[in-house]
Amino acid sequence: MQKLTNNELGRPTLSTYHQLEKLPLILVLDNVRSALNVGSSFRTADAFRIEAIYLCGITATPPNKEILKTALGATDSVKWVYFEDTLEAVQQLKSNQYTVIAIEQTQNSTMLNKANFIAQKTAVVLGHEMDGVQQSVINSCDYCIEIPQEGTKHSLNVSVCAGILCWEYYRQNLTPQ
Amino acid sequence: MQKLTNNELGRPTLSTYHQLEKLPLILVLDNVRSALNVGSSFRTADAFRIEAIYLCGITATPPNKEILKTALGATDSVKWVYFEDTLEAVQQLKSNQYTVIAIEQTQNSTMLNKANFIAQKTAVVLGHEMDGVQQSVINSCDYCIEIPQEGTKHSLNVSVCAGILCWEYYRQNLTPQ
Repeated sequence: MQKLTNNELGRPTLSTYHQLEKLPLILVLDNVRSALNVGSSFRTADAFRIEAIYLCGITATPPNKEILKTALGATDSVKWVYFEDTLEAVQQLKSNQYTVIAIEQTQNSTMLNKANFIAQKTAVVLGHEMDGVQQSVINSCDYCIEIPQEGTKHSLNVSVCAGILCWEYYRQNLTPQ
Repeated sequence: MQKLTNNELGRPTLSTYHQLEKLPLILVLDNVRSALNVGSSFRTADAFRIEAIYLCGITATPPNKEILKTALGATDSVKWVYFEDTLEAVQQLKSNQYTVIAIEQTQNSTMLNKANFIAQKTAVVLGHEMDGVQQSVINSCDYCIEIPQEGTKHSLNVSVCAGILCWEYYRQNLTPQ
């Protein structure tokens, strides 16, 4: 069980990565306050080869010192677009045939373990650390997914949510080996 | 798709939570440098009702201002134990019949999508942000699990890893509904 060296991991170079086909998953950050959470989401998006991150409203954009701290360069590999208004991002995604899903605890939300992401063009909207996804944005989404949680706290950290969502999408779409 | 209020979420109180049966999953943090990552792992552990977090070596312990920032009180709900030496934690877990798994990119590692956590007493060891899990600790584990990654970066953020591992364990052990 010898640890692999960075070389042995065989990660793609930046230019190779840019040419790889991406999974049709887009993260939409709706007014995420912490640039550290934004950076960490970039790093996750890079690892799972997802299509893009849409940064909306007050969400910080690169170049940004705090994003850099947690993205560690993944802002160069992952495509990103800024929208002043999250609703505009949602409308554009819908007109491009993406299913747009808010990650929120709502009436009639679908639990993540019941969600089907197989071969779906999907955008997931993650919200502000305290306030979550705006209700007006939720109303314009196709449906809501909730990560089942049983603890004393009301929610997970937003970059951890992004990680769980990306993993679940990636896992479901892995080619059986 | 109205957002639920905190009251409507029906989260348990601290005293109710302490009495709940926990999932037999223990997170072992082997020299995790950032107290923010430690706090975030507490918050995740609380959400998925896991048994405990073992904090080893240089890993910060509560009370700690930075842990508090990301744990948001989950240090009160989640059981934790400090070990100066991670190897001691691993030995204790093994003698209590836990399967101890290092999360690392190693020769012969098992990809996470092939891992079986159903009804297993499990401890997962997560390592230092730059150096990963110590080789001596890996050598004392039962096996290694690797989160498949295809990006330009060599690894995920450690608190995101903890989130993905806890979710995967929780998902596999959810009672079919």
